[in-house]
Amino acid sequence: MELKQQVEQYMDGIREIDQKAIEDATAYNASLLKIPMSLGRMEEIAIQLAGITGNIKNEMKKKCVIIMSADNGITAKGVSSAPKEVTVSMTECFTKYVTGVGVFSRASQSDLFVYDIGIDGDIHDPKVINKKIKRGTADFSQGAAMTYEEALQAILVGIEAVKDAVDQGYQVIGTGEMGIGNTSSSTAVICALTGTPLNRAVGRGAGLTDEAYQNKVDLLETAIRINQPDKNDPIDVLAKVGGLDIAGLVGVYLGAAYYRVPVVIDGYISSVAAYVAFLLNNKTKQYMIESHVTEEIGYQIIKMEMDLKPLMVLQLKLSV
Amino acid sequence: MELKQQVEQYMDGIREIDQKAIEDATAYNASLLKIPMSLGRMEEIAIQLAGITGNIKNEMKKKCVIIMSADNGITAKGVSSAPKEVTVSMTECFTKYVTGVGVFSRASQSDLFVYDIGIDGDIHDPKVINKKIKRGTADFSQGAAMTYEEALQAILVGIEAVKDAVDQGYQVIGTGEMGIGNTSSSTAVICALTGTPLNRAVGRGAGLTDEAYQNKVDLLETAIRINQPDKNDPIDVLAKVGGLDIAGLVGVYLGAAYYRVPVVIDGYISSVAAYVAFLLNNKTKQYMIESHVTEEIGYQIIKMEMDLKPLMVLQLKLSV
Repeated sequence: MELKQQVEQYMDGIREIDQKAIEDATAYNASLLKIPMSLGRMEEIAIQLAGITGNIKNEMKKKCVIIMSADNGITAKGVSSAPKEVTVSMTECFTKYVTGVGVFSRASQSDLFVYDIGIDGDIHDPKVINKKIKRGTADFSQGAAMTYEEALQAILVGIEAVKDAVDQGYQVIGTGEMGIGNTSSSTAVICALTGTPLNRAVGRGAGLTDEAYQNKVDLLETAIRINQPDKNDPIDVLAKVGGLDIAGLVGVYLGAAYYRVPVVIDGYISSVAAYVAFLLNNKTKQYMIESHVTEEIGYQIIKMEMDLKPLMVLQLKLSV
Repeated sequence: MELKQQVEQYMDGIREIDQKAIEDATAYNASLLKIPMSLGRMEEIAIQLAGITGNIKNEMKKKCVIIMSADNGITAKGVSSAPKEVTVSMTECFTKYVTGVGVFSRASQSDLFVYDIGIDGDIHDPKVINKKIKRGTADFSQGAAMTYEEALQAILVGIEAVKDAVDQGYQVIGTGEMGIGNTSSSTAVICALTGTPLNRAVGRGAGLTDEAYQNKVDLLETAIRINQPDKNDPIDVLAKVGGLDIAGLVGVYLGAAYYRVPVVIDGYISSVAAYVAFLLNNKTKQYMIESHVTEEIGYQIIKMEMDLKPLMVLQLKLSV
């Protein structure tokens, strides 16, 4: 079967969350001795979880975070304040639980699954799951980041990552990514999809100078102009100006909806992937749980488009 | 020793958090392989905890919530949609961990300490700590809610509650309250202290009609007019238009600062108590940790006055 058909089968197989369970959970909550809906977002999420699992009460004991790591050819143009080698070193640190995501995962009793979906370097850590599609994307300011087929492949890696997690009994999935330059690819994707001008969506990152900022805006404008991504085909957009990590996470969101597990949106790149999955099939949103407000300005576009109601305001500033 | 002197001794004994530990923790964080302050509010809190405990790294394993329960005479005027008997029944449910705060405490491995600081009814549950000052406050639309000495007594109960918790090894303290009518007393306190007009601070509560809303505004305006609380003496304000539960929580905040443990601000009433403690000694804020944005409109006044940066947006609507 062709890759496109495979991905479409998954997309078409996504069902609504269970309306009967939603009604039962709503009735159960209403029967409790308290002001109706007084627990606000927590109550909404409890009801959403009922819709996802089909059970009125849910305890999510087995948790994991799926991290997609990949490199981005655009880093050759100096869009990032960190060298691209950081992708390799951070990825190998993830499995040791010594990074931020590792520490928070330990604190919340979550396991990490780390995927090499396209790192431009050799990974010597056997705990990193090797699904390398290619050694980083091409520099999209000069042509497509990847082929349409490669984007489909990356999406399938994400879907299969969820299947593997669900097969192992994981009940809720977090999303993570690593890839120097992926703030640029994420912003290019958002602007290509929504028509937002680049200077309204490019963030300053960690101490970008005015010149570097303008350079980044110009580069991403060039990327969109020369690649002409079709905004009505989000996979085309992913392929032309996205990244393998974003595409992998798009697959994680599709997979979570297909396999009926809740999936938590994390930072900017994760939010962009959530938005692409939402455009591919808006039922995916029923399986998504918002977490925090990201500081990256492009996030506000996604928040508005998807009507996200993030639960936490942590002022994380992790983009490089 | 007079009650006033006792409370003043505690207030005067509050020290700044440890600047050396703050510097060391800041340096430690800066030494980690990440963008400086990229963990935002979590990093700020980690540094704050260092200042409170004097240790660079902190794990807060032993946690408790101190709940102050009391009745409010103003309920005789029909300001609340729930009957005042709910104060007794909820208080007895707290110790069984079947209420909202009980469920969340279990989930976060916290213990509850429930205080009867002025319930107008008999508590038959031996797990409720009896520190009853009197059987509810007087109706403050007709005179002072309590005497100045009673307010001081209530503050001392709160301070001693923290001492008992710290003696048992608790490392972080949450704040809770129960008292039908305490949204009214809290709003009266805030308006008396800040000069905010009542119609800018009274919330609609759970389904208040227009008439009931106006009645509440009028009642609280009357309370402030006839009692003439001295806004330069927050204890006078507490005594005249506050409540025993609020005063007890003021003591918890003072005690947390005095005994150097972090204390978590919860909802509206807890925020009002935090603000009163802050006015009594602004160093108390150094020991406070914000939690969520409360929906009650009066909270916005406190947020602005204290420059609070709440971490969560949960849309809780628990005021009755």
